[in-house]
Order: sequence, then structure tokens, then C-alpha cells
Amino acid sequence: MSTSPSAYPALTQAFLRMYRLEHFNSIASWDQASLMPPGGNQARSEALAELSGLLHRLGTDPQLGAQIEAAALEELDDLQRANLREMRRKWLDATALPEALVQRRVMVTAKCEHAWRTQRPANDWAGFAPNLREVLALAREEAQFLSDKLGVSPYDALMDRFEPGMRSERVTQVFAEVKQWLPGLIREVVARQAHEAAAQPVIQATGPFSQAAQRQVCERVMQVLGFNFDAGRLDVSTHPFSGGVPEDVRLTTRFKDGDFLMSLMSTVHETGHGRYEQNLPREWLGQPVALARSMAIHESQSLSFEMQLGGHPGFARLLSPLLAEAFGDQPAFAPANLNRLLTRVAPGLIRVEADEVTYPAHVILRYEIERALIAGDAEVDDIPALWDAQILALLGQDTRGNFRNGPMQDIHWPSGSFGYFPCYSLGAMYAAQWFASMRRRTPDLDARIAQGDLAVVFDWLSANIWQQGSRWPTDELSLRASGETLNPAHFRAHLERRYLGQG
Amino acid sequence: MSTSPSAYPALTQAFLRMYRLEHFNSIASWDQASLMPPGGNQARSEALAELSGLLHRLGTDPQLGAQIEAAALEELDDLQRANLREMRRKWLDATALPEALVQRRVMVTAKCEHAWRTQRPANDWAGFAPNLREVLALAREEAQFLSDKLGVSPYDALMDRFEPGMRSERVTQVFAEVKQWLPGLIREVVARQAHEAAAQPVIQATGPFSQAAQRQVCERVMQVLGFNFDAGRLDVSTHPFSGGVPEDVRLTTRFKDGDFLMSLMSTVHETGHGRYEQNLPREWLGQPVALARSMAIHESQSLSFEMQLGGHPGFARLLSPLLAEAFGDQPAFAPANLNRLLTRVAPGLIRVEADEVTYPAHVILRYEIERALIAGDAEVDDIPALWDAQILALLGQDTRGNFRNGPMQDIHWPSGSFGYFPCYSLGAMYAAQWFASMRRRTPDLDARIAQGDLAVVFDWLSANIWQQGSRWPTDELSLRASGETLNPAHFRAHLERRYLGQG
Repeated sequence: MSTSPSAYPALTQAFLRMYRLEHFNSIASWDQASLMPPGGNQARSEALAELSGLLHRLGTDPQLGAQIEAAALEELDDLQRANLREMRRKWLDATALPEALVQRRVMVTAKCEHAWRTQRPANDWAGFAPNLREVLALAREEAQFLSDKLGVSPYDALMDRFEPGMRSERVTQVFAEVKQWLPGLIREVVARQAHEAAAQPVIQATGPFSQAAQRQVCERVMQVLGFNFDAGRLDVSTHPFSGGVPEDVRLTTRFKDGDFLMSLMSTVHETGHGRYEQNLPREWLGQPVALARSMAIHESQSLSFEMQLGGHPGFARLLSPLLAEAFGDQPAFAPANLNRLLTRVAPGLIRVEADEVTYPAHVILRYEIERALIAGDAEVDDIPALWDAQILALLGQDTRGNFRNGPMQDIHWPSGSFGYFPCYSLGAMYAAQWFASMRRRTPDLDARIAQGDLAVVFDWLSANIWQQGSRWPTDELSLRASGETLNPAHFRAHLERRYLGQG
Repeated sequence: MSTSPSAYPALTQAFLRMYRLEHFNSIASWDQASLMPPGGNQARSEALAELSGLLHRLGTDPQLGAQIEAAALEELDDLQRANLREMRRKWLDATALPEALVQRRVMVTAKCEHAWRTQRPANDWAGFAPNLREVLALAREEAQFLSDKLGVSPYDALMDRFEPGMRSERVTQVFAEVKQWLPGLIREVVARQAHEAAAQPVIQATGPFSQAAQRQVCERVMQVLGFNFDAGRLDVSTHPFSGGVPEDVRLTTRFKDGDFLMSLMSTVHETGHGRYEQNLPREWLGQPVALARSMAIHESQSLSFEMQLGGHPGFARLLSPLLAEAFGDQPAFAPANLNRLLTRVAPGLIRVEADEVTYPAHVILRYEIERALIAGDAEVDDIPALWDAQILALLGQDTRGNFRNGPMQDIHWPSGSFGYFPCYSLGAMYAAQWFASMRRRTPDLDARIAQGDLAVVFDWLSANIWQQGSRWPTDELSLRASGETLNPAHFRAHLERRYLGQG
């Protein structure tokens, strides 16, 4: 029983309109984080709140719901049906929460995040905890509303906004397995690298590295990685991110005088996000189906660039002459040495500075804590002890009393983003799975990358991920791209091959 | 018969909401002109069109009209009454035009302006004229609608949007007088400067002047001129402008390797606009009464900075060490020589490059032509002959066949902005009037400026212009500030004093 489409075209118009207004949210938020002088903050925040209220009203218009129901009975092709599925997902998400809760959430998280910016450097857990308790209370309330709507557990309902379809049962299973082999692997890699360094020390690059020269390297590497500067820029912000819109991608990095690798590798990471956005399917742009699939898939792109490519010997070979050109040549820039610098493994306290081997440990401990928090199995006051125990067990680190570099280090909790952390490691696993799939299709993949031929990688990503937008649910995207749904074995194999020379 | 306010508070909420959404128009338009990569243009334009449609719907909501009528009967204080007057003005302007005309206008001017960008360098009048005819037809239609609504002539109705309350009868009278003395004054000044140069040649600065050093000079001068970098920035665009919002002013300039004065003086000009915006009354911000009074008053600020201050010997004295610091010292940077460079008078073809003596000639000829065009007394095909005759009569220049640097040089007509040009010269006249008023209050004004004390100028402008926002109609603003309404005698006296040493 299907009718010729009339609700569906009306929906595409409504979503196109929201897409165009979202444009301002993206650009103004990017500007706020990168260029905006501090005095502009209040007016910008008020303008963004006004826009977000407007978009909320548009996105919760009861007519949309009725049209989505009506469109489901219309004669639609597969693509339109996929678009309708994504529309429904957005509609459910937008209408799940009462407006009063949404507004309270803005106030409570803004207060907590704002205070956190000074409390973190002051190591002020006692000041931070009451604010975080408020955020947590609200997040639990939010999770309950979403849970009722989606029919999944409260934590899963939060995670679903970032990673649609992913459930904690599966994540827990995947992470439990990783916990089995990761600490041992880390110890083995660290020992091996120490042994190698004893035989032949890793040569550190000597600075200073001027900001102008670092920027030049970043932009050259972005070019090598295929970033389209006709439709994007690189600027500076305190925390690097990929912002803007698919038609105009705004990446940011940050510069530290003594350490060009920090700006460079965060730029490589963001370039992965940026190329995904720049290469989303143009013909559907403006519709939900044309947007990036999920945050784990997004991270699989940034990590394909930063980790899969960045740690590859071929990348060091491409990078070497660019560094010599920008900073003057030095022994550290020899490709083999560069590759060692780019694959050094060292357990540490800070997630965003972690290498790809120790990174999952940071994610797993956060995942376990936030799941317990949302489930009501743990309270804010329990966080430090849980943190200290896990960081010791997984990474052998001691964070007792060091809140600043322990549970206060991330913006996610103060800003109320529970359910995001798993995406980072799921992304790393997908990235390894993509490269495994590429290797099956192109057996000489590594030789080609080593020769500086990256097109083979970009073509695969473009055809299998970028150009697919949100056409398929994540499991189907993965199946079509790699012949299987998420399979973390590829990640383990990747680490063992790269860091232990196995396989 | 007045009631306690209920419509008025509702109006302030509605206008505050529009103000906050306008924020995105300002910031996104600034970004489009300064930072945006070309590939982002289509998405940006579509987003801006969507926002502008939304703002148009909000601004023409019939409820607003009813509330404005109701508020007129409520008990309001003077400030609220002034705000209501500005609200009514915006309402009349927004509702005067049928939406279909507004949309056609966007299409027709976008087409003309877009083509003009390549037709101008190609000197392609024949290609340009048909597009301009469409724009003119539409502008006439628009002017007729506005004229019917406001009860003034069509041209006056267009001008009223930029310069509320100004009428062409008065402009014509003012300009007719200027035409009497200007050509003679120009000849006298040119002869005098030639004579002086024969006795002591003006020393040209020798470049190159690196972009980084030019930027440093611009930013230092902006600081000297009191620009608040906590609430604003300086960036680069093809055509310098002052954009952003009062809380976050985005100035732009452009750099030419061989000519640091171009970037510098356009920056000084925009800084005048910028300080006006940065110092609009904060306590009313978000309401129409807190906005800048008019475009002539706005230009009176940019020209107070660029011309009144920029041509003052005290400015050259302030500038001299900054130039030496940025570029290395050279004889051209001696204050007396710098001042001669900054006050050189030379008739030319290009309005935006004109000095303050010849500038009015450029404006007058445009004013006369566009008035005739809107009145139907001239057609597009008549423009070149009218232009050639006037530029010859007023400035002794020959533009026959040189459309590029003749009637195709400005963006105003291709973009449909008829009625704006007079504001430039009215602004120059107001600026001279402000300084005359300052001199009456502070007889040693010039000595103080010569000593680098600019606070006396800024304090006067702040109290009399900036802090007044749109509280008074322009005539009353002028009367309160300077004891008289527009009096062009001050402008003539200023030119004669500065350039002929008279008075």
C-alpha cells in the first residue's frame, strides 16, 4: 500500500532548510574556537543559543513527525528510504527530550565546563565534583528519556547519538577481550623499543621550530594527504578539531615551539576527518543521508590518516624532505628515524597524547566508569578511586591525587558528552579493518604506500566510506566495505605486526 | 490616553531575537569576504539566503506592526520612544516591498554583480549594460514602492534607507555649492603643492614593505587609535571593510608590497568605523536604538580618523617611529615629509583612491547620475556620456572609452545600492563639523593632537556620537553635538586651512 510521494519531498525541503541554518552553527562555532576575540564571547553565545532554539523548534515541529509517518507509506527508492531512516533518527533524537530539560542541560554543562577550565589547572577536584554531580544527574535524566524512546538501556541510548546501532553489550565484549591482551602487548612493545634504542638510540629532532615553518609543514602534508584547500582551511585553536561544513572544512591545530610533531600529527588526524567531510556524496548534500555515518566511522578516518598512515614507513619517507625543507636538514629527519619517532610507545597519563598502542587503555577505563555512572552503579565521588585502579592495572601509572591529569583531563564529562569515548577505540579498530581489507584487495599495498603512492588508500576510503555517507547502517557499511562487521582482531593484528614485527 | 506597556516589551524581545540571528549574517558575510575558500561560496550563499528569508519573515510578521501601533499608545520614556521610532522605521522598510520583488532583487543584483567582477577588468561595458538595465528597472520599481510608503520621492526613498531623513533637495543644494568652489580649490591646491615640491621635493618611501611589517604597523596604529583588540580583529580581504558585530568588530585591509600607505590608511579609515561600533551604547545593545545612526554619520567617523586625524601633522608624528620600527628608518619617514605624503592632492579616475579634496567630485557626479537614473531622466546608455562630461568638468580627467575606471569602477550600482553615494561626502562634511565643534570647546585642540594627545578627540566622539547610537534623528544628533545641523561651510574651511594655509 504505497502512494506517490508528497510527504517525502516536503521533508527534504524541511531538512534542507535546517541544513542551511546549521551552516551558521558550524561556522560560528569554529570561529568562536579559533579566531574570535574573548570580548565577543557573550554575544556569540547568545546568538548560538538563539539559533539552537530555532533549530530545535524546526526539528521538533509536529508536522515533521506526521510527514515521516506519511512518507513511510509512499513509493520511495532505496536511497530515499535510507534518507527517511536518517530523518526519523534525527526526529526521535530531537523530540525525545522535553525542551525544559534541553535548556537546563545547556546551563548546567556550560557552568561545569566553564569552571572546569580553571579548576583543571588548579587540580581542584573538590570544586569540580559538585558541578559534575549536577551534570551527571541531568545526563541520567536525559538518558532515561532517550531510553524510553528508543527502547534500549540508558547508557546505550546516549551512545546511540554518536554511534547509532552500537550497544554496550557488544562494546563491553570487545573491550573485555582487548583488556586480556593489551597490558601484555604494551609491556612487550616497550621492552622491545628499549632494546632497540639501546642498540641504536632514537635521535630526537632539535628545535626551535618556528610557527611559520611548522605551519608550512602542516599545509604541505595536508596537500600530500589530498586535503582540498579550495574548500577548506587550516587555522589555530587551543584544542585541534575539524569543523565547518562539508563544502568548507575548517581544520585547526596548535603549535608548540619545541615540538613540531604535535602540530603535525594532530593536523594529520584532523585531515582524515576533513577528507571524509570534503568527500561526502555531493549529489545528496543537504539531506541527512549525505552526512557522515557515525563518530566511530569518523574516527576511523582520522585514525586511518594519523595511525595507519602516520606510523607507516612510507609516511616517514614522504615527510622527511618536507621537514628538511622547512627546518633545515638534521639526522632526526632520516626516514627510518622519523618512523621510530612516529611509532614510539610510552604509557602515560594523558589520553590525547597517547600512542595507538596505549590509547585503548585510556578509552576502556573511561567507558567502564561512565557506564557505571549512568547506570547508577557509581557516583561522582567514586570516580578517582576507579580511575586510579584502572590506570594502574592497564598502564602501570599512578594518578592518585593527580586529578588534573586523571579524571579531570577530558572535556567530555564536564560538557555532558557521556557515551562518546568508545567511538575513539571503535574507530581505531575500524581503521585497522579497512586497511586489512585494502591489503586483501591490493596485496602490494605496503610497498605502494612505501613508494609514496597514497592514492590507492584514498580511492578505497572514498569509494567505501566517504561516498557512502549515511546510506547504510554502520554494520552494513562495514560489511560492504570489508566483508565483515566490526572485527577487532584486525586491530590486534595491526599492532602486533607494526610493533612486534609479527604477521 | 496611554496604557502600561505590554506591546513594547514584546517588541524588544522580538527585535532582540532578530539582532541575535543577524549576528550570523554579519559574521558569515565577513568570513565570506575574508577567509572563506572559494569552494565554500555556494553553500555559504545558500545559507545566507535562507537566513535572510527567515529574517525577512520575522521582520515582516504582521504582529510586529500591530504591536508597534499598540506600543505608541503605551507609557514610554524618551529612550523607549526613540527605540520605537527606530522599530517603526525598520518595520516600514521591511514591509514596503513585496517578497517577490525582494527575491527578484537578490537574483538580478547577484547576476549583475557576479558578471561585473570579470566585465570590469575586461572593460566590457556592452556586456555590463544589459545586466545593469535589469538592476535599474528593479531599483526603480523598488524606489516606487518605498516612495509610496514613505511619501517622499523615489530617489529620496532609496537614500532614506542609508541616511534617514536626508532629502535630495538638501543634498542637491549642498553639492551645488561645492561644485562652485571645488574645481577652483583643486587647481589652487595642486599648483601650491607643485610649487612646494619644486622648492623641496616630497620624498617617497622606498620598499619593499613586507606584509608582516605592514600588518605590524596597521595593528600598532589601530592600538594608538584606541581599537579594542579584545573585541575585534584585523584580517585581509580584497576590498577593505568594517564588519562583524558591535561586540566583535572585524576590520579588513589589503596589502600591496610596494605601498604601505594603502593598507595603513584604509586600516585607519576602517578603525573609525570600528570604534563607532565598539562604542555604541552597551546598555541598549540588541535594540534598534543602540545601532549606528546612519551611513553618513558612520562615514563621518571613518573620515574623522582617516582624513581629519590622518592628514594632521600630529598623526605623522605618531606614525613616524612606528614606521621606522617596522621597516627601518628612512628619510621619507620624517614627520613633516610623512604629512606631505598623507596630504598629497591629485585628481584621478578612481574614487576609492581619491584624496579628501578631490573626493567630493567623484561623489557629486555619481549622485547626479543615479538621481537622474532613478527619476527616469536618464537611462543606462546615457551613463558614459554623463560620466565623461562630469569627470572632465570637475576633475579635468578623460574617461572616454575607459569604462573600467569610469562608470564600472564601483560595486554600488551592480549591487543595486542606489542612494548610498551621497553619504560619503555628507560624512566628510560632518567630520569637519565635528572637529570645528571640538576646536570651539578645546581651543588648543591642534596643539594637543600635535603632541599625540588623541584622547580629547575620542572623548568628544564617544560622548557626542558613539554613545548616542540612534537615540536622535540625525539633525538633532548634529545639533546636540555641534550646535547646528549639517553645515558644509566647515568642510570648505577645513580644506582651505589644511591645503591653502588659510584661516
